[in-house]
Amino acid sequence: MNQFPEAGQVIVEDGFLKHYMEIVAHCALPYQWQMLNGELGENPTMRNFRIATGDEQGAFGGVPYQDTDLAKWLDAVGCALGNERNPELEALADAAIDTIVRAQDADGYLDTYYQLVCPDRKWTDPESHELYCFGHMIEAGVSYSEGTGKRALLEAACRLADHVGRVFGPAEGKLHGYRGHEIIEMALVRLAAHTGEACYLRLAEWFVHARHDTPEAFYRGERKEGNPLDYGSWGWGDPERETSSYEHVTGHAVRAMYLYSGMADVARLMGDEKLLAHCTALFTGLTRRQMYITGGIGATSVLEAFTYPYDLPNDTLYAETCASVGLCFFAQRMALAERDSCYADAVERCIFNLLPAAVAQDGEHYFYVNPLQVNAEACLKSPLKTHVKPERQPWFDCACCPPNLARFFASLPRYLYAYSAKGVTVHQYAPSAARFQMDGGSMTVRQSTGYPFDGVVQIAVEQEVSFRQELALRIPDWCESWALCDVWGDPMNVRPEKGYLNVEIYGSCAFTLTLDMTPRLMQANRRVREDAGLAALQRGPVVYCVEQADNGELLENLSVKARSPIRIEMRNDVKGFGPYPAMRLRGETDATEPRTELYFPCAQRRDTEITAVPYCLWGERTVGEMLVWLRRT
Amino acid sequence: MNQFPEAGQVIVEDGFLKHYMEIVAHCALPYQWQMLNGELGENPTMRNFRIATGDEQGAFGGVPYQDTDLAKWLDAVGCALGNERNPELEALADAAIDTIVRAQDADGYLDTYYQLVCPDRKWTDPESHELYCFGHMIEAGVSYSEGTGKRALLEAACRLADHVGRVFGPAEGKLHGYRGHEIIEMALVRLAAHTGEACYLRLAEWFVHARHDTPEAFYRGERKEGNPLDYGSWGWGDPERETSSYEHVTGHAVRAMYLYSGMADVARLMGDEKLLAHCTALFTGLTRRQMYITGGIGATSVLEAFTYPYDLPNDTLYAETCASVGLCFFAQRMALAERDSCYADAVERCIFNLLPAAVAQDGEHYFYVNPLQVNAEACLKSPLKTHVKPERQPWFDCACCPPNLARFFASLPRYLYAYSAKGVTVHQYAPSAARFQMDGGSMTVRQSTGYPFDGVVQIAVEQEVSFRQELALRIPDWCESWALCDVWGDPMNVRPEKGYLNVEIYGSCAFTLTLDMTPRLMQANRRVREDAGLAALQRGPVVYCVEQADNGELLENLSVKARSPIRIEMRNDVKGFGPYPAMRLRGETDATEPRTELYFPCAQRRDTEITAVPYCLWGERTVGEMLVWLRRT
Repeated sequence: MNQFPEAGQVIVEDGFLKHYMEIVAHCALPYQWQMLNGELGENPTMRNFRIATGDEQGAFGGVPYQDTDLAKWLDAVGCALGNERNPELEALADAAIDTIVRAQDADGYLDTYYQLVCPDRKWTDPESHELYCFGHMIEAGVSYSEGTGKRALLEAACRLADHVGRVFGPAEGKLHGYRGHEIIEMALVRLAAHTGEACYLRLAEWFVHARHDTPEAFYRGERKEGNPLDYGSWGWGDPERETSSYEHVTGHAVRAMYLYSGMADVARLMGDEKLLAHCTALFTGLTRRQMYITGGIGATSVLEAFTYPYDLPNDTLYAETCASVGLCFFAQRMALAERDSCYADAVERCIFNLLPAAVAQDGEHYFYVNPLQVNAEACLKSPLKTHVKPERQPWFDCACCPPNLARFFASLPRYLYAYSAKGVTVHQYAPSAARFQMDGGSMTVRQSTGYPFDGVVQIAVEQEVSFRQELALRIPDWCESWALCDVWGDPMNVRPEKGYLNVEIYGSCAFTLTLDMTPRLMQANRRVREDAGLAALQRGPVVYCVEQADNGELLENLSVKARSPIRIEMRNDVKGFGPYPAMRLRGETDATEPRTELYFPCAQRRDTEITAVPYCLWGERTVGEMLVWLRRT
Repeated sequence: MNQFPEAGQVIVEDGFLKHYMEIVAHCALPYQWQMLNGELGENPTMRNFRIATGDEQGAFGGVPYQDTDLAKWLDAVGCALGNERNPELEALADAAIDTIVRAQDADGYLDTYYQLVCPDRKWTDPESHELYCFGHMIEAGVSYSEGTGKRALLEAACRLADHVGRVFGPAEGKLHGYRGHEIIEMALVRLAAHTGEACYLRLAEWFVHARHDTPEAFYRGERKEGNPLDYGSWGWGDPERETSSYEHVTGHAVRAMYLYSGMADVARLMGDEKLLAHCTALFTGLTRRQMYITGGIGATSVLEAFTYPYDLPNDTLYAETCASVGLCFFAQRMALAERDSCYADAVERCIFNLLPAAVAQDGEHYFYVNPLQVNAEACLKSPLKTHVKPERQPWFDCACCPPNLARFFASLPRYLYAYSAKGVTVHQYAPSAARFQMDGGSMTVRQSTGYPFDGVVQIAVEQEVSFRQELALRIPDWCESWALCDVWGDPMNVRPEKGYLNVEIYGSCAFTLTLDMTPRLMQANRRVREDAGLAALQRGPVVYCVEQADNGELLENLSVKARSPIRIEMRNDVKGFGPYPAMRLRGETDATEPRTELYFPCAQRRDTEITAVPYCLWGERTVGEMLVWLRRT
């Protein structure tokens, strides 16, 4: 069976992804600690725990799931410490964990909102976020144990999980369902894998199936036809609409991803083929009909939800950072269950586009909503766009995204490779080294590459014991032409199967994989009305955008010429990022002088030069307009 | 001073506008009576009045301004009877008026919501719609008196106005302001003009100025920065922002138009140059920055409001039918005050596009929201578009639009001409006859034309007494080439001033005005992002659209070729409408076969034939997609 790498098995050595891991480890995590500890202005997160221990007097502050900000931060710190030691950060985390452990009730309960505000109402509100708080803290306990070997938070996590197991389950007298925000499912699976305690996996399985089998326990009868919260994401399928409910996802985007991640875990680990088939269908529907080209998901801010297939507005969208983190969770789990490159393709789309865009180079500013078309005036004045921000923000009232993004980037090494008894799969390209102990001996894979800005990937394999193994290399979905050559430069005769080149390894060896990175004009499926007739610029996995900084205002008037050659021009104007390839191409723009009339006969257009930069860097130089989908002439 | 025509002075004899007047007189008004009288299903409008008289037992039903549905209907009937006798309709109206008069309190108060639900709370809620109900009933009284000579409702209207005059005004002890929906201002002006009682005009003037001078009386201190309801429409300018508040309109679109109409009335009749200048600035800002090409106004359903200049989304818009009716009210009043064709141009845009589109050929189905881009799936499933309907509706819970549209079309003759001591102005072209008594004798103007589908207008003038007068003929803003010829076909040497050709008349004579109606591709100002790079088809004043019925689904994929010749093809497939010119032109469309991928390299497009029909006829043949702004290659 395929497995995730564990802490320390994969080292990202350099390049684009390492850059974002370092932003998180060295900038974002210290900054976020100060934020959560109230050192940068009012923030109740850490104080709530101190009040719960009695160390401090005061009242609970923040949102009912305020605890999760700290849990995600500890999760991130645990992962980051597994990548690289940092005694200062570890000391902060250890102190926080000490407080957390002391805040936990004797029966394992830990949710400072309920403990401080309404202790008599624990487990009474099916809409509450208690399981969400529990799940995030369990994940933090596992990550911190993996990254540091320290078990205090892991033991707290086990007490949390044991508490959940006493409260929930099929037995009479237990609660049979709870509607709040998902995560407990995949948290329990991780805890089971880390501790070896199968009871947690069985509890996760029960949660997943209970949503399907006894939805009334989750919904208290208030489900209504046509309400986007009805089914799909919150239940993983409507039992009365078995055939249609897997065709596309509905409901709250983040919740959907977390639930599907738990479903994928359970399906894989329990060998549940039917559940896995549902997951496959949901993933296919999601990525083929409801995903932005940047990896964003969630088309509307109304209930932070999906809408319907091919409805992908670029300006009124939600495309929450957490939703794309969740998409990676789901995709990674599916990639373990099924050898098909579509899963790693989706991860790639997120990690080179939306997710790095969501954090500034200083690690202290973030996007929550990730538009593909933005101008500051609309964000201020259009009632449909006030949730969209034209620049990264230092923090949010509901600050789910910054620490979630941190824990994702800190755990990124685990997305690059997977391994099994038979060999190693390379899902993502990045300068990195991975070493796995397998049946018959260890195998080390090292990549040297300038990916994603360069398409040449040099791969060296070392086997300690000579034994036939397999190395699978993904051919990305965007790549129309590639070559795999041996050390002498001779092409190797291997063809991709479901998107992977399977290379047989009989000893230490080296290859060069060359992926053609010719810049391309991309179009969307014709059913995407918002993008009809438009083109996006892409090079390798990197989606580009145009910005006011390079192209002036009113970007919507630009159009690209379908057959214009696209030149690559190296730039170095994003502080902290280093050189990157910009695109230059010829296009047209409106030729009318500023005039007072609102409507008049069409005027000729004039030629212009268009400059595009990687989407992940938008808004880094100046605040202004940004646009991904350009008109096409 | 320029004046509106009065009832009977203008007769629309045939053609497009007459067609819609007949739909209203012969279909809509009988249908609406049945609706308001509860004969077509539950509707409390007429019953509320019968309960108020004691004729019937029961409880008030509907919205607090339910009375206005009936008042608008009576207004429409009054106008329609002025155009054409209809004893059956008149009998229904007379009976309704009898009930209304009996429902009025002895002190003149009449608002069945307050009378039946909370009589002790009259004039206590600055947010209430009492003045809106009063104003509409006053307008009905004037129209019915004008159309029939019967004075019962007019006398009730005077009692209403007198009641308002006792409650509101500058004197101590009176109310100094009331925030609810405007209309009382222009209603009082009409009542003053019809009765000759200047006190009503002075009260209207006080209302207009009080909004500006003592806004606190209207807002009770709850005004907040950035709230689109703050100023502009509800107050006619923010006293603290004198310079900016006239640059563009804000707030609720219908309320804004009604207030501005009252302001324009007062400015003109009181010779208030400063107020008139404000009106001019507001009108200019509105029509040059915030009006759809169809004549729609109001860019968002959120508070049914304007947003900001050049923000004109085609699919999430509001563009309420009532708002364009209000735009015509405002424009018509401005046209009396200032000789500038921009006002009649705006009326023309509405009467040949949005307003006829808002009623079906059967007179029994209506649009409330008037999109420029629509597909049924989005209307059902997008939370931002559920207020948009892809087909005309039999009625609405808030049914302001159907009777407002009826009273507008019934009063349409008054928009075609204006007159003064010096002569006659022809604002709109339609087969019609107008006869005005002026200083020195009467003047009759007759137009023969196939306008708006044909650009030739034959004009015959008869003067009873030979006397130098002036005939002003508007050159529409869309017209780039025109000719005015005398009876022998010789061009007349006359140049437009502010959009009007001023022809001196020394006796009976005839001319032919020929307006070039070559079909055109129109573009929007480059600041309109939503239309950037797009083109709309227009011929004469008629804006066209493409529909699924002619062009298949996914209309957004179509693009027009900038230099393609446009052919006119007569069609006769809209039941009840008669022959109309459709447009045929060459274009391109997406050439990809239905495929599963969401994003892929741009494919070649293929040539296609595009068929466009007048916007006013959209949705008349089948329910399907519709689009005004097409991509342009």
